[in-house]
Amino acid sequence: MHHHILETCDRIGRANPDMLRAAADRQKTLTKPTGSLGRLEDIGNRVAAITGCLTPNLSKKRIFVVAADHGITAEGVSAYPSEVTRQMVLNFLSGGAAINVLARHGDIEVQVVDAGVAYDFGSLPGLIDRKIVHGSANFAIGPAMSIARAERSIAAGIDLATTASQEGVNLIGIGEMGIGNTSSASAIAAVMTGRDVREVTGKGTGIDATTFERKVGAIARGIEINCPDRSSPVDVLAKIGGAEIGVMMGIVLGAAAERLPIVADGFISTAAAVLAVSACSRTADYLFIAHRSHEAGHQALIDLIGIPPLLDLDMRLGEGTGAALAMHLIDASAKILSEMATFQGAGVSDRSQA
Amino acid sequence: MHHHILETCDRIGRANPDMLRAAADRQKTLTKPTGSLGRLEDIGNRVAAITGCLTPNLSKKRIFVVAADHGITAEGVSAYPSEVTRQMVLNFLSGGAAINVLARHGDIEVQVVDAGVAYDFGSLPGLIDRKIVHGSANFAIGPAMSIARAERSIAAGIDLATTASQEGVNLIGIGEMGIGNTSSASAIAAVMTGRDVREVTGKGTGIDATTFERKVGAIARGIEINCPDRSSPVDVLAKIGGAEIGVMMGIVLGAAAERLPIVADGFISTAAAVLAVSACSRTADYLFIAHRSHEAGHQALIDLIGIPPLLDLDMRLGEGTGAALAMHLIDASAKILSEMATFQGAGVSDRSQA
Repeated sequence: MHHHILETCDRIGRANPDMLRAAADRQKTLTKPTGSLGRLEDIGNRVAAITGCLTPNLSKKRIFVVAADHGITAEGVSAYPSEVTRQMVLNFLSGGAAINVLARHGDIEVQVVDAGVAYDFGSLPGLIDRKIVHGSANFAIGPAMSIARAERSIAAGIDLATTASQEGVNLIGIGEMGIGNTSSASAIAAVMTGRDVREVTGKGTGIDATTFERKVGAIARGIEINCPDRSSPVDVLAKIGGAEIGVMMGIVLGAAAERLPIVADGFISTAAAVLAVSACSRTADYLFIAHRSHEAGHQALIDLIGIPPLLDLDMRLGEGTGAALAMHLIDASAKILSEMATFQGAGVSDRSQA
Repeated sequence: MHHHILETCDRIGRANPDMLRAAADRQKTLTKPTGSLGRLEDIGNRVAAITGCLTPNLSKKRIFVVAADHGITAEGVSAYPSEVTRQMVLNFLSGGAAINVLARHGDIEVQVVDAGVAYDFGSLPGLIDRKIVHGSANFAIGPAMSIARAERSIAAGIDLATTASQEGVNLIGIGEMGIGNTSSASAIAAVMTGRDVREVTGKGTGIDATTFERKVGAIARGIEINCPDRSSPVDVLAKIGGAEIGVMMGIVLGAAAERLPIVADGFISTAAAVLAVSACSRTADYLFIAHRSHEAGHQALIDLIGIPPLLDLDMRLGEGTGAALAMHLIDASAKILSEMATFQGAGVSDRSQA
């Protein structure tokens, strides 16, 4: 692996187990029956362990929406034409997409990253240019990217997370836009979980039965032709992934190295997160999965990674929309630790006095 | 039923079915694949039908935290002493409880209502005095309240909702505090669903096996002695309910009459909502269930009412904590309708152009 990636993996330590226990102890002193906030308490305890702080502050939130095009669309796998990727990038920049609405609602900054859109935007205010490819190649007939480009995409993501940390961001989310990218995510899910392509392939943005069969066929051929090496996440990324998946993988690694909680959105973001965890298993300590996507392959990735999603609302849009909603819950869990009164402080009888 | 309650039920109309269809049509014009926001779209469409507005505004949110004591605690059914109800009311007023933290986080106003705490607070800034009883009577040996008091509690709730509407509140949540009140909620669940008491009785704030058996016994005796009439929600409320449950039931009816979306929190709030729906079935059109409580009887009530909860985080605190988190999601669904760009407006190709 590229030196920058290896060095980042080396920097990733385990989340602090002492702080996890200390947070669990603190929960018992707060004016509520122990455990009564359920998973909100577990999440808060994890945030304490991640940040090394018993009263964590997650007030500065940022979601990266990473966009790229995919040559696999030549196989007719998507319900939408490729130019929608470019059009949606412009929609993100003008604030009209679902992620813009939900991010404003949750007081979250959105940064739009061009990782590999097949269009030259020139210099566009607000767009972060990290273009690795002008659309990845059709992975049904060869590798999506070279190993060098895959590594560059990961490195770009690491740098985005490092900069965010330097700018005081304390909660990071990842989302994506890329017509055709559910095909990459399904291919990654099949390779990383060992399941059948058909089992982990969904309807994407809404395709019919014929298109679905074409999609399953294209993904299966892509895996057969490229022989991605499951033990090498960079190899998998290069052969059947995409530039936005690489950048998101890098953001996850970079966030973990900076000891920041990182929220994967849905299916494609989780595929990127699975590659990051494969590169360095300690990354999982820093990772939250926003929601259980309606996409068929997501559950397989969730089972693999062993982190239950926070929300289950049948969403399948991407863009980071689930992450935006989940970040509100994660911040809530941090505020429970930071802001709630204790039994002693509030003069409330604890159970032991019953 | 009391005239004020009957009149309120008469005022409750169906949510607007034309607006429901119009909202579903509008979703198709927004820059996302149709249906890709899953339940968030269904919720938004319901909000449009409730408010009669295609671009609904839910910016002014209020949660009522309604408190009361319960004579059933004399049977030794709770892990906490009764004075915790009073102590927690003070905690709510000083802003240190979980609901305060989560309401601040979600930009929600909290109003604390004394419906029947067994303590004389005198005049306490911020506390809304609607005291119906100084603690309800022990329903294991007789009715919890008289019919007249039960009706007064409902009327008080209706008035709170009407005032909220007059003050411009456009999204209402209900939560509660009352040591012993899971016993009332379980009794209501058993009577209204016809299930076994044991099946719908949980561990409340965390009781041991012996206490659990005492609780099941006390609830079963209470139902046997009082013979609540399932076809009369006021009778059920009076005999085995509680003052905060009556006030919450009234808030639900009042909100529906004002065409405001209303969010029930968890087990006890849903029991109140079930009584409201029993008084007027059209109320269900306006109702959201915030989360699936860890409490055993909640699922039975959810099945009865047929409204799936938004969140599933193993919470069982009450106070409106789940409602506070769910209101963020409901407002998000409204903002999707109100703020997203259309395909045409943003120059994004819709699928039909693929």
